[in-house]
Amino acid sequence: MKVNGTHYRSLWWDRGEQVLKIIDQRWLPHDFRVQPVATLQDFCDAITQMRVRGAPLIGATAAYGMALAMRLDPSDAHLDAAWEQLNATRPTAINLRWALDRCRNALRPLASRDRAAAALELAHAIADEDVEINRRIGEHGLEIIREIAARKPTGEPVRLLTHCNAGWIATVDWGTATSPIYQAHDAGLPIHVWVDETRPRNQGALTAWELGSHGIPHAYVTDNAGGHLMQHGLVDMVIVGTDRTTRTGDVCNKIGTYLKALAARDNGVPFYVALPSPTIDWTVSDGVAEIPIEERDAGEVTHVQGALGDGGIGAVRVTPDGTGAANPAFDVTPGRLVTGLITERGVCAASAEGLAALFPERAAA
Amino acid sequence: MKVNGTHYRSLWWDRGEQVLKIIDQRWLPHDFRVQPVATLQDFCDAITQMRVRGAPLIGATAAYGMALAMRLDPSDAHLDAAWEQLNATRPTAINLRWALDRCRNALRPLASRDRAAAALELAHAIADEDVEINRRIGEHGLEIIREIAARKPTGEPVRLLTHCNAGWIATVDWGTATSPIYQAHDAGLPIHVWVDETRPRNQGALTAWELGSHGIPHAYVTDNAGGHLMQHGLVDMVIVGTDRTTRTGDVCNKIGTYLKALAARDNGVPFYVALPSPTIDWTVSDGVAEIPIEERDAGEVTHVQGALGDGGIGAVRVTPDGTGAANPAFDVTPGRLVTGLITERGVCAASAEGLAALFPERAAA
Repeated sequence: MKVNGTHYRSLWWDRGEQVLKIIDQRWLPHDFRVQPVATLQDFCDAITQMRVRGAPLIGATAAYGMALAMRLDPSDAHLDAAWEQLNATRPTAINLRWALDRCRNALRPLASRDRAAAALELAHAIADEDVEINRRIGEHGLEIIREIAARKPTGEPVRLLTHCNAGWIATVDWGTATSPIYQAHDAGLPIHVWVDETRPRNQGALTAWELGSHGIPHAYVTDNAGGHLMQHGLVDMVIVGTDRTTRTGDVCNKIGTYLKALAARDNGVPFYVALPSPTIDWTVSDGVAEIPIEERDAGEVTHVQGALGDGGIGAVRVTPDGTGAANPAFDVTPGRLVTGLITERGVCAASAEGLAALFPERAAA
Repeated sequence: MKVNGTHYRSLWWDRGEQVLKIIDQRWLPHDFRVQPVATLQDFCDAITQMRVRGAPLIGATAAYGMALAMRLDPSDAHLDAAWEQLNATRPTAINLRWALDRCRNALRPLASRDRAAAALELAHAIADEDVEINRRIGEHGLEIIREIAARKPTGEPVRLLTHCNAGWIATVDWGTATSPIYQAHDAGLPIHVWVDETRPRNQGALTAWELGSHGIPHAYVTDNAGGHLMQHGLVDMVIVGTDRTTRTGDVCNKIGTYLKALAARDNGVPFYVALPSPTIDWTVSDGVAEIPIEERDAGEVTHVQGALGDGGIGAVRVTPDGTGAANPAFDVTPGRLVTGLITERGVCAASAEGLAALFPERAAA
């Protein structure tokens, strides 16, 4: 999508420098910094430190990491070592492992001398596929927004609420939850987006930055506000992304998503989850019991980063000095609370049956 | 309660200086500043700017404001003018109006020359009553905690979750939601408190400061985390305060309370609300439809205040420059989601019947 009128993807291969370039998202929305990722440790740091973030983007980044690893040393041992090193960066998003498995499975049968070129082509393919998948998610989601718009008085905006950043910078392009939003806006439907702040890392500021850059009306709200907005009829639809979806339709997404799903159900507001099929974990049936939830550093909770009055970027400590904090990064929304899953193949119920009908070849495996 | 070993109330009358002293809560938990409140405008600013905050403390502060007004000019006209000026400071907490009405009704029949002294005595009485009410709430809440503790393995702490600061600094002393917590700790029951951050103003940092000062184990969590904690059996009881309770048991409290109540219900966790009876609005039946919700400044959402690395206090802007924000300060939790109301007269169901049984003289009025 566009930044100051120029179209960007959230990562791209610099053919001249033969290096992957990323937008270092730690400085957004205050500063737009492009950075090369040049060593395997760089790739791991980029994922762990959330310079790149969002399940689809993590997957694509990891594929480029495998490509670099094969350029450095295309042996079987290094193929496995790179898989292990990259897989250990973050535990919750399934796309990471999906991309790594796909790369290893494709590269293993090849002669060592062919692996570097093949790995790079595969990384390009994974990145391009992500763009196409998200474009299609947007098409299917757009139909839902159209239906809601058709039931509203003419000219009144469809009011969507979203949590975290499932935007274009969480993917290679378009975003997942934002793809229907971008497409609705581009199709001329009046929309307004409530953007959840999404503590502790305030990814809502990224979403606000994206929407503002694209000219989409929105308002930033605390994570606490959504229930009140829904009680007062100010939300027509909730749409979020996901880091891992079970075969039964449970949705693991940024911490706090579950609370919004509960409020949506209590107020009769449709709650949709937009997901590329690589985020489906066909091996998991019970999301709450089985998905490991990343516990991140307490400092993300006790301190808040932002723009200082002098134009720099800094952090303030909110809590008393020495206060301990817990920081679970994700929660699981049971499928029973989800109105529908929006995938690249269409919309289905958040259930084993719903997903199996859209992905029969995977469900049977 | 205690600060560095010294017992404080959150406001007190300085007999030597003949002036009300408050703790300016805008600088907590980073700085403990005591401030005199010397003019009627000072009183209004103290409430509006949240130097004092919390429904019970606002009520007591307003009573001292009326006392000052009577010292300046004890006429009927000024009695009404001061009532109007103080009542306009904040719209949601019912204690404000309760205290102002009580003062006006008591002072109106008196001769002008007697009003200043009587108003000051009445303010003292309201402050002392608040302390006694909260002490009793703590006794009743302690019994609930004892029952939960009795069902747990020996030595395992009772894990409570609280939202916002319904602590001693939100009242004159003890707090509402924290009074059972302090009393349980002082009675030797092992407890652990999950402290919700409570964006946008992070009153959780105040609660963490209070609990830390009193030596009570606790952890600070984002407002998003509570649902996840409850899903995993890590919360035995939710306890919060309230700014206004309807005669039917609907509870208006800090924004986000409703989301925690939904999660508690979904996970079978008891959800209690601690309230002094002056927070009951006997004129309101439907909290969602009838209680006005204060919309506060967007800057509270877009900016976060805290301690800077250099020891000073400052703010960072989290959002992109110019992002708009909505900032509803409260939400309403319907009585159907509340396990029980803990009042100074005991615990009752969050319903018209429950409240009427405890307060028959008010319910019949």
